[in-house]
Amino acid sequence: MAKIQSSNNNKYVLCLVCSMILNLLFMTNLYVDSEWIQSWSSRAAREAEAVAAISCSGHGRAYLDGVLVDGQNQPVCECNTCFSGPDCSLFLSDCDVNADGGDPLFLEPFWMQNAANSALVVAGWHRMSYTYEDSNLISQELETHIRKIHAIVGNAVTHKRFIVLGAGSTQLLNAAVHALSLDNSSSPAKVVAAIPFYPLYEKQTVYFQSTDFKFDGDVSLWKNSSDTSINLVEFVTAPNNPDGQMNKAVLKGPNTKPIYDHAYYWPHYTPITAPADGNLMIFTTSKLTGHAGSRFGWAVIKDESVYQKMYDYMGVNTMGVSRDTQLRALKLLKVVLESGGREIFEFGHNTMRNRWEKLSNTISLSNRFTLQQIPPQYCTFFHKVRASSPAFAWVKCEREEDINCYEVLKAAKIIGRAGRIFQGQDQYVRLSLLRSQDDFDLLIHRLSKLVSEENGAKTM
Amino acid sequence: MAKIQSSNNNKYVLCLVCSMILNLLFMTNLYVDSEWIQSWSSRAAREAEAVAAISCSGHGRAYLDGVLVDGQNQPVCECNTCFSGPDCSLFLSDCDVNADGGDPLFLEPFWMQNAANSALVVAGWHRMSYTYEDSNLISQELETHIRKIHAIVGNAVTHKRFIVLGAGSTQLLNAAVHALSLDNSSSPAKVVAAIPFYPLYEKQTVYFQSTDFKFDGDVSLWKNSSDTSINLVEFVTAPNNPDGQMNKAVLKGPNTKPIYDHAYYWPHYTPITAPADGNLMIFTTSKLTGHAGSRFGWAVIKDESVYQKMYDYMGVNTMGVSRDTQLRALKLLKVVLESGGREIFEFGHNTMRNRWEKLSNTISLSNRFTLQQIPPQYCTFFHKVRASSPAFAWVKCEREEDINCYEVLKAAKIIGRAGRIFQGQDQYVRLSLLRSQDDFDLLIHRLSKLVSEENGAKTM
Repeated sequence: MAKIQSSNNNKYVLCLVCSMILNLLFMTNLYVDSEWIQSWSSRAAREAEAVAAISCSGHGRAYLDGVLVDGQNQPVCECNTCFSGPDCSLFLSDCDVNADGGDPLFLEPFWMQNAANSALVVAGWHRMSYTYEDSNLISQELETHIRKIHAIVGNAVTHKRFIVLGAGSTQLLNAAVHALSLDNSSSPAKVVAAIPFYPLYEKQTVYFQSTDFKFDGDVSLWKNSSDTSINLVEFVTAPNNPDGQMNKAVLKGPNTKPIYDHAYYWPHYTPITAPADGNLMIFTTSKLTGHAGSRFGWAVIKDESVYQKMYDYMGVNTMGVSRDTQLRALKLLKVVLESGGREIFEFGHNTMRNRWEKLSNTISLSNRFTLQQIPPQYCTFFHKVRASSPAFAWVKCEREEDINCYEVLKAAKIIGRAGRIFQGQDQYVRLSLLRSQDDFDLLIHRLSKLVSEENGAKTM
Repeated sequence: MAKIQSSNNNKYVLCLVCSMILNLLFMTNLYVDSEWIQSWSSRAAREAEAVAAISCSGHGRAYLDGVLVDGQNQPVCECNTCFSGPDCSLFLSDCDVNADGGDPLFLEPFWMQNAANSALVVAGWHRMSYTYEDSNLISQELETHIRKIHAIVGNAVTHKRFIVLGAGSTQLLNAAVHALSLDNSSSPAKVVAAIPFYPLYEKQTVYFQSTDFKFDGDVSLWKNSSDTSINLVEFVTAPNNPDGQMNKAVLKGPNTKPIYDHAYYWPHYTPITAPADGNLMIFTTSKLTGHAGSRFGWAVIKDESVYQKMYDYMGVNTMGVSRDTQLRALKLLKVVLESGGREIFEFGHNTMRNRWEKLSNTISLSNRFTLQQIPPQYCTFFHKVRASSPAFAWVKCEREEDINCYEVLKAAKIIGRAGRIFQGQDQYVRLSLLRSQDDFDLLIHRLSKLVSEENGAKTM
């Protein structure tokens, strides 16, 4: 009897020891996480993770601020073009492919893969003031990180340069025109660019109807001008939108002021040949990290008085860039810097190179269409000679009867952007290569079909 | 012997049961949280909570994007004015009190108390596109919530009205002037306001040097004008900045177009007497939730063509408001709505009423200074007659020799904003009442001292 009880005893002890070890494990687990499990960010984390977990079949995604599904507390799936249905699984085979807009969604998978290091928690009381502690409209930490990015990429000189932030390059472009035009000249400055050019240059300059500047179109008309009484502001876009060429300033002389739009001067798109060193250079996260929606960009400026004028413009226009946007930009730039830029630029370059190769192969079979040519160059970032992998294809319709290339592609259910929008010829159309993989795949599918239907198309 | 073993047995069983219950509790805890403990938002949560836990002695706070403490990975404490030291515990007794800027930090404690429901987790891939799914620059969910806020507060009609978002009222004010001036008139529209007025109206209109509009100062000069060939844009600020009066439009007639700036038409500051119903009304989160740094506001517009022009302005100027800012604004408005607005408006009104009473009591002892008078009215939000609790004191120096009231206060180490900045007289100065409690307490301390030193000051 005593033996049985002793044996029972041993069993209980054994069970107790096991149970207590388990207790200890649970407690360790709780202790490690205890600092934040019970704390103020958990509700927000649950909300965000629940939304991220919504399945949209790989052809869309749900957002925290999406419109809610009828009668539920859950946001809808927002589908890529040509996909539909509650979970984006329905392919609309007859739909027009969007090769029009410059939404840089080719980088979306990179950020999904980097979910943990790119997530951001914003406290309800984050930066309620109008200014940072030093009465400035610009986050010092963010400015420091911008300089670091240029240093590791080697695409711009920032030493002894001033930095102004803006709501994307959009706001900075007009701020720059404004700053360079203010010089007490009696006649307004003339704003020019080399054709084909990004249409916003003209649209903005005309829209704001300033007494200080007027849009004057094609820079080449001023190339040999000897009139030094007129101030000329020249947009120099390198790489160029739409055609990816590394444009240089056309105008020289004391009364000419270039604005270098370097939105696409990143290793995703082009060999980095040397640090750019223009007097006034504009960059944007849209084409660096792919966050077009964040509306964030910056200008790197040599001259202190031009910097001061652009800074003032930001104050009067919007009182600087939203602190929320500056906080998010800082987080994203930190992720870029974590691997010395290697991860994001390899991802971006590989994606864009693959796309360019596929497109080139498709077009190479055609007698009807041609693509722009950009010579390979030594890239100081990747330490090798590499081809360009541009954000846009600048397609030319070679047949005489194809007088409107945009319409030719539209008839094949491909929506590009017509050459005339860039003040170019109707023989040209711009096709966007930086959208989602779905958009790109469908573009190649449609183009291949179009080419295969050509009379006398080449075969592989 | 058997008895002892049996008793031991019972003890072991009891211990085992306890231990197993504990395990069960731990497991439940883990299970409930298991969906997100291990997941992508935890690193960001830890970072944010670690920063929030930094102690700044109640006289400052650390931010996630703050400058780092030398040699450490931790951001510095950013201290309220007149506080210093690594943890803001050092009071600078000789320092000038800041009653100048309109930083709405009186609401910061509200958001700290509401940490859990106001926190926001932003995924790295959140809204990378230029537009929302419907090719719009405006979040539908956010627009819906803005309409709900006006409905519960009863301060503006939004039914059958259009809404445009902007980077604070700052961007919207100029967009409104721009939209109302575009009418193919041969001469530029004249922009006017009732003195004293918010200086940005003039600063912006002059700064952008448009051919479409010119600033023309005091509205009263146009009151009896019969010239109907000139377009007049009138800023109507209600409650007014600086003096808190419920201004009404001065101009009438077909060629006059008011812009209603209702930044301060919230229960914190003023009785809500009826829903405002102007053709073009501007609101901002700066003075509703206190998030001046977020740069977020909206316009409520009757006329579709004016709406379209303002929407276009936002597109050309900045391509709309940052998606990050729109997401944060949505989160903050959701918190406001959680209690039907009761919690934030009671907090805001109580704080501002206490401050106004303290200030009134202090000034009531003086023969040298007076305050603006605003009659109490029935508030449809609080369902009672209540006094105004304005954002700013509009102080008048009554002595003939005190020709510059700003300088009088400055000599007493109180920095206000001079009357002339609002095109008012030098006898007036604006004192900000919506800054941090530290700023307000020091303001009252300095004012009490100044009043007590008056020859012939009244006593309680």
